[in-house]
Amino acid sequence: MLPIRDCVQQTPGYVPGEQPQTTDYIKLNTNENPYSPPDEIFNNLEEELKKVRLYPDPVSTKLRQAAGEVFGFSYENILAGNGSDDILNIALRTFVNPGETVAFLDPTYSLYEIIAKVHGANIKTIPTNENFELDSPLICPEAKLIFVASPNPPLGKHLNRQSLQETCEQATGIILIDEAYVDFSDENHWDFIKQYNNVIVSRTMSKSYSLAGMRVGFAISSVEIIEQMNKVRDSYNLDRIAQIFGANCFQFQDYFKDIWQKVRNTRNRLTDSLRKLDFFVFDSDANFVLASPQWMEASDLYTKLKERKVLVRYFKHPRISNYVRITVGTDAEIDRLLEVIEQLKNEA
Amino acid sequence: MLPIRDCVQQTPGYVPGEQPQTTDYIKLNTNENPYSPPDEIFNNLEEELKKVRLYPDPVSTKLRQAAGEVFGFSYENILAGNGSDDILNIALRTFVNPGETVAFLDPTYSLYEIIAKVHGANIKTIPTNENFELDSPLICPEAKLIFVASPNPPLGKHLNRQSLQETCEQATGIILIDEAYVDFSDENHWDFIKQYNNVIVSRTMSKSYSLAGMRVGFAISSVEIIEQMNKVRDSYNLDRIAQIFGANCFQFQDYFKDIWQKVRNTRNRLTDSLRKLDFFVFDSDANFVLASPQWMEASDLYTKLKERKVLVRYFKHPRISNYVRITVGTDAEIDRLLEVIEQLKNEA
Repeated sequence: MLPIRDCVQQTPGYVPGEQPQTTDYIKLNTNENPYSPPDEIFNNLEEELKKVRLYPDPVSTKLRQAAGEVFGFSYENILAGNGSDDILNIALRTFVNPGETVAFLDPTYSLYEIIAKVHGANIKTIPTNENFELDSPLICPEAKLIFVASPNPPLGKHLNRQSLQETCEQATGIILIDEAYVDFSDENHWDFIKQYNNVIVSRTMSKSYSLAGMRVGFAISSVEIIEQMNKVRDSYNLDRIAQIFGANCFQFQDYFKDIWQKVRNTRNRLTDSLRKLDFFVFDSDANFVLASPQWMEASDLYTKLKERKVLVRYFKHPRISNYVRITVGTDAEIDRLLEVIEQLKNEA
Repeated sequence: MLPIRDCVQQTPGYVPGEQPQTTDYIKLNTNENPYSPPDEIFNNLEEELKKVRLYPDPVSTKLRQAAGEVFGFSYENILAGNGSDDILNIALRTFVNPGETVAFLDPTYSLYEIIAKVHGANIKTIPTNENFELDSPLICPEAKLIFVASPNPPLGKHLNRQSLQETCEQATGIILIDEAYVDFSDENHWDFIKQYNNVIVSRTMSKSYSLAGMRVGFAISSVEIIEQMNKVRDSYNLDRIAQIFGANCFQFQDYFKDIWQKVRNTRNRLTDSLRKLDFFVFDSDANFVLASPQWMEASDLYTKLKERKVLVRYFKHPRISNYVRITVGTDAEIDRLLEVIEQLKNEA
């Protein structure tokens, strides 16, 4: 008998969205940015390539400094992660003993549940209201850690700010606010970090900074919290190239702000067009929309779109089983999506 | 009171070897390969850079296939890690509940102790004999996981094969054999994987494949063990560029075999020269040597070498407090090291 931990044995692995490594799909399933980063981020690459035989900076100093300038914090308030998934796992392992409780909304980013189970934590899910929103503070006194995403997937809307603030006020544990999608909206929660000593904000460069392929994420919090989380992370968790691409991207704020506005414009057009095509669509603050076709099962729509080389995301979760989540692509990609959907609707 | 876990609060963080990000040091302190990988590994880079906005292959298929061809296993027997440190942590989290026991030799790779403490495991250290070797099987019936490195740092010698085999035979837990340095020797332990159902071999591309900057490591074991470990790893633990550089490096076996032989030749010359300079030096199977100056405190030697821009590694561990660990550099680097040492000896 091999000594596999019960918490591992009993948990199915996380199934990430499909990542076809071919280019024949219109890929609107995992919320990547449709626009590449500027070519200039590759400028210092030659120099870094000469150093691949050498260990990277173990504490990602330049990357954290660059992040700090953009976020308005000292680099000592920032921990760099191998993607923000690394940050989520580090938080679990810093604050939660197996058998203790982790809380999060339902529905939300499905990884929270999987990593909490693998960690052996007790799980408390707090249902969102019928509109998938938070209309009162998320109260769970036994939780050592609460994961809240705002904007919250798969809906993509910011949670009610007042409720979130009251959650921070009342919690005895740590609140990790996952801001993966925040750059496609007008607000963030950085003021909560300064206001409350139990708040961590996590960020990723995968979406707004077009670096999903490079795995760069951050935790922003008090120096005390960052120091403890720093003990838990792998000592060389970001490679040289990830560090330099991340730091370089932060230098092109104007470029990225233009992209975020383009994505928001396309998102609004997508929302309107889907509604005209008889979908129920939630308003979104993120780079995706959750939409329910009123004339076909969502699972069928997913399959038929995939047959026509358009990938969207379908979740088996009972509360959203008649929705698909569609990432905001380029205008041309969205035109093609809408064209295919119109054909399917006419055939339905 | 923030809910920091006791196991985290009470553990000092791991202190990696110094990684000056300037180039004015002769860097012989963290066992990097002194030779860069061939320029051809950058060949497919343009194509990958165009795709940095897209998530990487979550299961590192091409990299694992390339590793499998070199190691002589199916890719299903291989898990890719963000460096082999990631593999060590994944093993802990797959097989050991907090409060259960992890065993390893003393001295050995100092990270084992830190990550086991951060995980909340009980630690059982088994002292090596007076020559820092293993002369009988490592018996620890309560251990869910035994970390053994062979070659074992900081000595750099392979452990006695018979003792290691008996360790695998008698263990009721998992044996993880850390082969970080194995390519600088003539043996490995891959046959143990096929012979025993509780053996994992970990490998890294940081040393022999000149990729310390890119964080690529592997676990090789049974499909059953790999499947469980796969649930614990971050779902996108290797970025695009790390995956492609790793896969590319494996295509240049002749190039790297030449390098490994060069390193071994330099290692032998370094060993002989240090002995002539009145050092006690252990024979090594790795790309470093453990050496004790008979005419100066090792800590002083470390400091004086650093003042002269030569970095070696000094460990405060009581059993090796009069040793320095020296990475095998290029012949020119070792010439310079020996020259500085000779000056220091003459002044001593």
